[in-house]
Amino acid sequence: MALRIIATGGTFDKHYDEIAGKLTFAASHLPQVIECARITTEIALEELPLLDSLDMQDIDRRRVLASCTHAKEEAIVIIHGTDTMRETAAVLGAATLDKTIVVTGAMIPYAIANSDALFNFGFACGIAQALPPGVYVAMNGKIFAWDKVTKNRTAGVFEPL
Amino acid sequence: MALRIIATGGTFDKHYDEIAGKLTFAASHLPQVIECARITTEIALEELPLLDSLDMQDIDRRRVLASCTHAKEEAIVIIHGTDTMRETAAVLGAATLDKTIVVTGAMIPYAIANSDALFNFGFACGIAQALPPGVYVAMNGKIFAWDKVTKNRTAGVFEPL
Amino acid sequence: MALRIIATGGTFDKHYDEIAGKLTFAASHLPQVIECARITTEIALEELPLLDSLDMQDIDRRRVLASCTHAKEEAIVIIHGTDTMRETAAVLGAATLDKTIVVTGAMIPYAIANSDALFNFGFACGIAQALPPGVYVAMNGKIFAWDKVTKNRTAGVFEPL
Amino acid sequence: MALRIIATGGTFDKHYDEIAGKLTFAASHLPQVIECARITTEIALEELPLLDSLDMQDIDRRRVLASCTHAKEEAIVIIHGTDTMRETAAVLGAATLDKTIVVTGAMIPYAIANSDALFNFGFACGIAQALPPGVYVAMNGKIFAWDKVTKNRTAGVFEPL
Repeated sequence: MALRIIATGGTFDKHYDEIAGKLTFAASHLPQVIECARITTEIALEELPLLDSLDMQDIDRRRVLASCTHAKEEAIVIIHGTDTMRETAAVLGAATLDKTIVVTGAMIPYAIANSDALFNFGFACGIAQALPPGVYVAMNGKIFAWDKVTKNRTAGVFEPL
Repeated sequence: MALRIIATGGTFDKHYDEIAGKLTFAASHLPQVIECARITTEIALEELPLLDSLDMQDIDRRRVLASCTHAKEEAIVIIHGTDTMRETAAVLGAATLDKTIVVTGAMIPYAIANSDALFNFGFACGIAQALPPGVYVAMNGKIFAWDKVTKNRTAGVFEPL
Repeated sequence: MALRIIATGGTFDKHYDEIAGKLTFAASHLPQVIECARITTEIALEELPLLDSLDMQDIDRRRVLASCTHAKEEAIVIIHGTDTMRETAAVLGAATLDKTIVVTGAMIPYAIANSDALFNFGFACGIAQALPPGVYVAMNGKIFAWDKVTKNRTAGVFEPL
Repeated sequence: MALRIIATGGTFDKHYDEIAGKLTFAASHLPQVIECARITTEIALEELPLLDSLDMQDIDRRRVLASCTHAKEEAIVIIHGTDTMRETAAVLGAATLDKTIVVTGAMIPYAIANSDALFNFGFACGIAQALPPGVYVAMNGKIFAWDKVTKNRTAGVFEPL
């Protein structure tokens, strides 16, 4: 089943800038992640502007929605920052597209030891092919409906609303 | 949804023995993998004897089947060597248990750079919670029915039968 | 030859705080680094307050000097932030202790992919045992006398003064 | 100080062949290792046939000696398997070249988690620039004269002879 992967940034894709000495965005790690996963299903990778999700504006969410709307694939995985994952999922959920859209991200950047990024990406790729159309948030090994999830920022985990 | 993870060895769980200078089995990496994934769903990890799947005998497959039969969880992920993944899946498939059983593994050990292990584990954990009861093989970002899959050993990928 | 390792923080030892979503300090990575290096020579690890080297004050440098002065080992490696490595080396150099003191650090944290931390640590441990008493800065595979080095912040490399 | 790095294989440079399912040799990891170390000193990398050191014959050791003899650099690091590191060091030591030659390797391949390869490489690069001409074995954070070292294969560590 063909998959569309939409990169929007977030912790998952943070890059350490050794000159500035801080985490920022550079080229997405997704091409490397996809290669590492040895995926043989057809993949379309679409890289939107990489943003910290706290910096995402309405226009950014509408751009994600437009990508989903125009995608020819019926299974879509969105890599997103965790802090406003729920807000973007809500915009997508309200649109009731006839596609399976899974929003995921990471608590630890892909490039940092002990990251959950690769697990979450695999988790989302599985769900996107297995669940009926709808919008889901996939974090902590749990599948949430887009309107039934919240991030517990103190504990750093996603919970049912 | 509660998940049972059954470790049986395979490339996924190979360990480098620095005294012997070769890849072998020691303690399973699964506890570390699960921690890294930050899974908050209920997990039961069951460690069977860790084997190269070419060394698996009928009795070993029956032990995997017994574990699945007795599991109280309805979603099960089995970590298995790739060479006889199909044979074990066939034993489980023939038993028609009322559970969703997903067999996965890795082409590169978890402990080696560029491994697909964490992706595959996430992929399988997603599918196990999302698909109806049945036995599936999950590799290369693809979901296969247990009786419709073969490993192309020359290319190192799983393909539809 | 017995070695004293003094941890003072810096990029080398930065830790990703997944709740705050930023790089900060937690427990030093040095115990793990030393284990990974399989060092069988006698090692004394001394953990001073872990600081970003831009936050280091005179009192912090005097504490590093005190540690070097009181050390019973004649070979000392100091893990330090790169931005003021030269300033601390100058304090140590002016004291003309009869010990071989090597100051090193990293451009990329130990816990982040593609880090130079482990190389630099090995490099410094070799030099500390091989050179006569004095204070040296060891970065980029080069050995600098403490008063003949500067960090080129634009290029992110250490150069002769 | 210009450095020559001579790659001869050994555990350090083992590569996991995912089709064959075993550790073997492919392209050397040394270019990646050198890049990761952010070395700005002049480096000449010379890749000899990559071998398990138990497979090294007299002719292979003579080739290493020839490389050292013809090198224009006065500081040389040799990446070598641990099992016969001492034998190659003896061939080089007997030649009494006017160069500082440091033989190192790894107990765990560079590409496997928890490897000592990057530390050992840094350790050797430091010593090669710091010690007077001679042939040294550098492992476990210790510097050994070429004729005063043995590998304790039971413990997996190098010891004074």
